[in-house]
Amino acid sequence: MILLDGKKTASEIRGELKTEISKLVEQGKNIPGLVAILVGENPASEIYVRSKAKDCEEIGMRSKVEKLPSDTSETRLLDLVKQYNEDKNFHGILVQLPLPKHIDEEKIIEAISPKKDVDGFHPISIGNLVIGKDTFVSCTPAGIHELLMRYKIETKGRHVVVVGRSNIVGKPIANIMLQKKDGANSVVTICHSAAKDISDYTRQADILIAAIGSPKFIKKDMVKEGVVVVDVGINRIEDKSSSKGYKIVGDVDFDEVASKCSYITPVPGGVGLMTRAMLLKNTFKAYKIYESLKG
Amino acid sequence: MILLDGKKTASEIRGELKTEISKLVEQGKNIPGLVAILVGENPASEIYVRSKAKDCEEIGMRSKVEKLPSDTSETRLLDLVKQYNEDKNFHGILVQLPLPKHIDEEKIIEAISPKKDVDGFHPISIGNLVIGKDTFVSCTPAGIHELLMRYKIETKGRHVVVVGRSNIVGKPIANIMLQKKDGANSVVTICHSAAKDISDYTRQADILIAAIGSPKFIKKDMVKEGVVVVDVGINRIEDKSSSKGYKIVGDVDFDEVASKCSYITPVPGGVGLMTRAMLLKNTFKAYKIYESLKG
Repeated sequence: MILLDGKKTASEIRGELKTEISKLVEQGKNIPGLVAILVGENPASEIYVRSKAKDCEEIGMRSKVEKLPSDTSETRLLDLVKQYNEDKNFHGILVQLPLPKHIDEEKIIEAISPKKDVDGFHPISIGNLVIGKDTFVSCTPAGIHELLMRYKIETKGRHVVVVGRSNIVGKPIANIMLQKKDGANSVVTICHSAAKDISDYTRQADILIAAIGSPKFIKKDMVKEGVVVVDVGINRIEDKSSSKGYKIVGDVDFDEVASKCSYITPVPGGVGLMTRAMLLKNTFKAYKIYESLKG
Repeated sequence: MILLDGKKTASEIRGELKTEISKLVEQGKNIPGLVAILVGENPASEIYVRSKAKDCEEIGMRSKVEKLPSDTSETRLLDLVKQYNEDKNFHGILVQLPLPKHIDEEKIIEAISPKKDVDGFHPISIGNLVIGKDTFVSCTPAGIHELLMRYKIETKGRHVVVVGRSNIVGKPIANIMLQKKDGANSVVTICHSAAKDISDYTRQADILIAAIGSPKFIKKDMVKEGVVVVDVGINRIEDKSSSKGYKIVGDVDFDEVASKCSYITPVPGGVGLMTRAMLLKNTFKAYKIYESLKG
């Protein structure tokens, strides 16, 4: 069993981007920038946004957090998004979700220029992903794909089984893996809560992507020998032995399942860190697009 | 075995739309309109466009064919699309593909207002389909879905296997069937030419959707007893007994497979006619959207 090491891989990606950005600095060129817009007080969102800004800093990428009060009007937020659509220093725009209830999230996401949509949530980004056009892919599925590619996991003609059909993980990763492209070209099954018996499908998986949001859901008898397991879950469960009183586990019962796997992602240290790294990579891509259109 | 009768169902849909439109006429209201834009001389395209116009006429829908010479510039075509985006009498815009090579098809499709995108080819329509927002669904997958619904085929938790991953059939129908909605909510597998053995997957299908483009590809031993078969193929094969010298067959070997099915679409008389009916339905929907935004 080989660990798909998200920590190491994410660090490699950050290292590569850091090198690219330092070249830009040497050449006296503009550098990529990411703006994160945060509305209202949400402790989890604040932590996310802060860690994203820290990641940018680490690799020499410009970053900015726009903190707006919770009573910010939809119009004000739309105006701010439009302002950053035109900003030459910020190539990626991220609006941290969830937004306060009086703001229409879809409207805000659709206002982000598709050229700066580093979260890949704009319907046009999702549509382009499906039809196989180069586009921004949301960070978690992009991170899963990157991890499989860097470990040179064979995907062509293999059976990828995705458990879960969320808009930000299950659906996009399924649509990535079925494309006729290197690192994809798989037969893809998407199963979910409506299935009579999910293990009918998971047991067929050459590559199993678990994005259910249920701690240790995937057990040993649900997978076949030699499977590649990608665990997207980040679940908090009680742990009295920890000083925090909890620990983070995935959607896969790692202790049971790992011995049957050819490859498996740990939790933590797997997909989560890849997600963060892909935001940086998407921002760098947005910068490249901006620069190519400029000149 | 019950025939999923596309001819009868399409005729029902046309009848329903005709009734709706005659009500609008009685009320002295504007009626829905479809414009089809055709560039250059392509005999197949001319036939398609003519049959679409004839369908409109039959149900009292306004229709217009814009025929442009093959040397029409991209700019001229873009201008025409933009003109119809603003036209209050044409609520659906269809640009017949393929376009001459000097015109960028993607650019033209993206110029169509998503509110008038009755072909459902705009990336924003595809993206919205994936995330489960109400949108225009391209006519063939919409027709398949409508046929399954009108025959009250149970889909929840059942295994839909799609063979083929084209942008206009395989990918959208897969994305429809996995939505958490009535008439969908299925476990979905998409298999294709890269699969080691396609019958490993087709034999699992409760509902098999064949969109391969290969005559009589699906044989008796590739399906299980009681399967629902939707045959999207329209293939011409030699037939000396016919005065035309050819006949139309599907991707499924109907004569072999039908006896194992609970339901099956014939070819011709199945999905093809549903596709045509859905274009009318999409145009009526575009009209409703236009009217609701107007007032």
